[in-house]
Amino acid sequence: MAVVTFLSDYGLDDDFVGVCHGVIAQIAPQARILDVTHGIERHDVRSGALVLARALPYMPAGVHLAVVDPEVGAERRAVALRCADEERLLVGPDNGLLALAATRFGGVVEAVEIARSPLRLEPVSASFHGRDVFAPVAAHLAAGTALLAEAGEPLDPAELVQLVLPRARRSERGLVAHALHADRYGNVVLDAGHDDLAGSGLRLGRAVTVNGRRALFGTTFADVPAGELLLYEDGYRVLALAVNRGSALAQLHLRADDEILIAPVP
Amino acid sequence: MAVVTFLSDYGLDDDFVGVCHGVIAQIAPQARILDVTHGIERHDVRSGALVLARALPYMPAGVHLAVVDPEVGAERRAVALRCADEERLLVGPDNGLLALAATRFGGVVEAVEIARSPLRLEPVSASFHGRDVFAPVAAHLAAGTALLAEAGEPLDPAELVQLVLPRARRSERGLVAHALHADRYGNVVLDAGHDDLAGSGLRLGRAVTVNGRRALFGTTFADVPAGELLLYEDGYRVLALAVNRGSALAQLHLRADDEILIAPVP
Amino acid sequence: MAVVTFLSDYGLDDDFVGVCHGVIAQIAPQARILDVTHGIERHDVRSGALVLARALPYMPAGVHLAVVDPEVGAERRAVALRCADEERLLVGPDNGLLALAATRFGGVVEAVEIARSPLRLEPVSASFHGRDVFAPVAAHLAAGTALLAEAGEPLDPAELVQLVLPRARRSERGLVAHALHADRYGNVVLDAGHDDLAGSGLRLGRAVTVNGRRALFGTTFADVPAGELLLYEDGYRVLALAVNRGSALAQLHLRADDEILIAPVP
Repeated sequence: MAVVTFLSDYGLDDDFVGVCHGVIAQIAPQARILDVTHGIERHDVRSGALVLARALPYMPAGVHLAVVDPEVGAERRAVALRCADEERLLVGPDNGLLALAATRFGGVVEAVEIARSPLRLEPVSASFHGRDVFAPVAAHLAAGTALLAEAGEPLDPAELVQLVLPRARRSERGLVAHALHADRYGNVVLDAGHDDLAGSGLRLGRAVTVNGRRALFGTTFADVPAGELLLYEDGYRVLALAVNRGSALAQLHLRADDEILIAPVP
Repeated sequence: MAVVTFLSDYGLDDDFVGVCHGVIAQIAPQARILDVTHGIERHDVRSGALVLARALPYMPAGVHLAVVDPEVGAERRAVALRCADEERLLVGPDNGLLALAATRFGGVVEAVEIARSPLRLEPVSASFHGRDVFAPVAAHLAAGTALLAEAGEPLDPAELVQLVLPRARRSERGLVAHALHADRYGNVVLDAGHDDLAGSGLRLGRAVTVNGRRALFGTTFADVPAGELLLYEDGYRVLALAVNRGSALAQLHLRADDEILIAPVP
Repeated sequence: MAVVTFLSDYGLDDDFVGVCHGVIAQIAPQARILDVTHGIERHDVRSGALVLARALPYMPAGVHLAVVDPEVGAERRAVALRCADEERLLVGPDNGLLALAATRFGGVVEAVEIARSPLRLEPVSASFHGRDVFAPVAAHLAAGTALLAEAGEPLDPAELVQLVLPRARRSERGLVAHALHADRYGNVVLDAGHDDLAGSGLRLGRAVTVNGRRALFGTTFADVPAGELLLYEDGYRVLALAVNRGSALAQLHLRADDEILIAPVP
């Protein structure tokens, strides 16, 4: 059974997501739709890209529709992409949203521009390309439109918009990381993973400082008392900060890309 | 495959929607359930009616269940309706919620009262008719109960509750419209569409005033700087007001039915 | 068609629920997933247990996955249970979350510990057992893994964690009940049902006092004016408190387990 996964910043308070489901169900009645989430912060392309890339490996291979589109109606491209691995197809705006997922699946081997796709719904509105362009193209691909070429005009994958992320680095005082994304609990995902720990002096079970504030490098929230700060590897093997029964985002006054010095306590 | 679409004001924080899905799945295991939205403001029948009517044309034809029901347990009727177009069936309270969708699909050709339907779940609770009356009737209809007549007592369609909406009008100063509904971004849908523009002096790309406040009649949010007001045709071809990266609802201090004068700037 | 129902406190803002759907869809592509709700208050095991037990009778029999897991990563057991009635299977943490549902379906006749199940996803993260342990085990059971025994190590059902709830009692002054759970409208579910009314002096249609505050024992919100307090049997035949167009939780300043004296007005 063909699968269409769907991620967006539409939220569930309005009918945007439901209408896209309806469009897909009309075009591809046999396709199963799996919602990744529609709770991406409005217009937060980077969080969308991060969540998409970490979630898709757990979703069945298929057509992966994603819409976080602050420039809808302006000049950004709309694209459908085929990845090297597992024939995964990505459909969405060309604003970096799909970039991390594409990398995760071996890179893009075929790309088409779909803004004027013959598969879109006419007339195309100025503001709801999820319904009029992205969902119909995703549905037709799920229904078996054999080639991306039928969905739009070929595009050189090298021209796709990339996503520039900060990179954690080791310094002589410890690990210099950055806040990439926070979930609804205020847990903060950093741009550092297991590999960045080597040589950093940080050791599991030991005390650390995070921007000068005392924390434990532990494994679960229960390792620290309520209100205390925890450094841990999250469910996606990425370093993250949490406060047991609280919000690390709030306690550390963090914003996206803020530099965070994590240092071992001697 | 039979389709049941579902719109309500139940929200997703509680089990109301899930339980209705369960009831439908037990009665009609082969039916596919598509959620339109459950984020209608509590008891806001008119917003429910507007969202339902604009969303259903994008949903596959089938049984369309809708529950926004401030008078549950009081004397309002519960109904199932067959529309002239596409055999669309509507199920819900007779409080105006279904009226705009019925009109959209050619009007009601058959109506039954289902409050005491033989298809309902017994015992019927006083407060959860979604689970006990509306969902079971919708599910039986989706499972193939051939005639509406099996679902309840015939009712003259002329007796159904209608929905009275304000109507935009042209004045010598411009267009006098009203605020019908706002989405979660504070974008405000008006009671005027493309046809109301003729003779109003309003022209795409030109400046206008909205209750005396300067705005642009544009096509996308990006047409105005952040914080500025935009008049546009929304994704459903209806005139709407938005503030780029802000809320038109808040900026204009609007409430439902407020009169809004939109005038051309000479 | 096999059914997996899913209840959690994950919310829908992040990708937790979507990723669990993906995991289930990969392991058991033919299984249908029905969400009960993901809006349980974070870490509120008791509300989760109450909602699960009242919702499941309306869901098709199948595998019932539930995750409200404040002690993930600590020493609580992870379990899969078979109930006496309808072959219902329950999967989740052994912290009382499943206890009321198990009782509702005739008690547990077979139990296994699944923390180290051969069916889990490797490597198991410290914090996301929904994805790595519970969803995969539920999916394999739905896909036809014949025996619970394949999912883990046998466990004596008598060792399962129980849930201790307050119990309403009659006093000479009326009914002494407790606040068990509130929904998003501030309607408060009590630990008393129809059977507790006998001999209490409380009669439908009559005035009562609730912690000294005047209320009506009615059937629907419309029985009292806006802002007034109502005692009623809710959609699950349980006594509950509501304020018409308001919040009983807020008006009565209630917290979980607070004692509430409900007395007849002579």
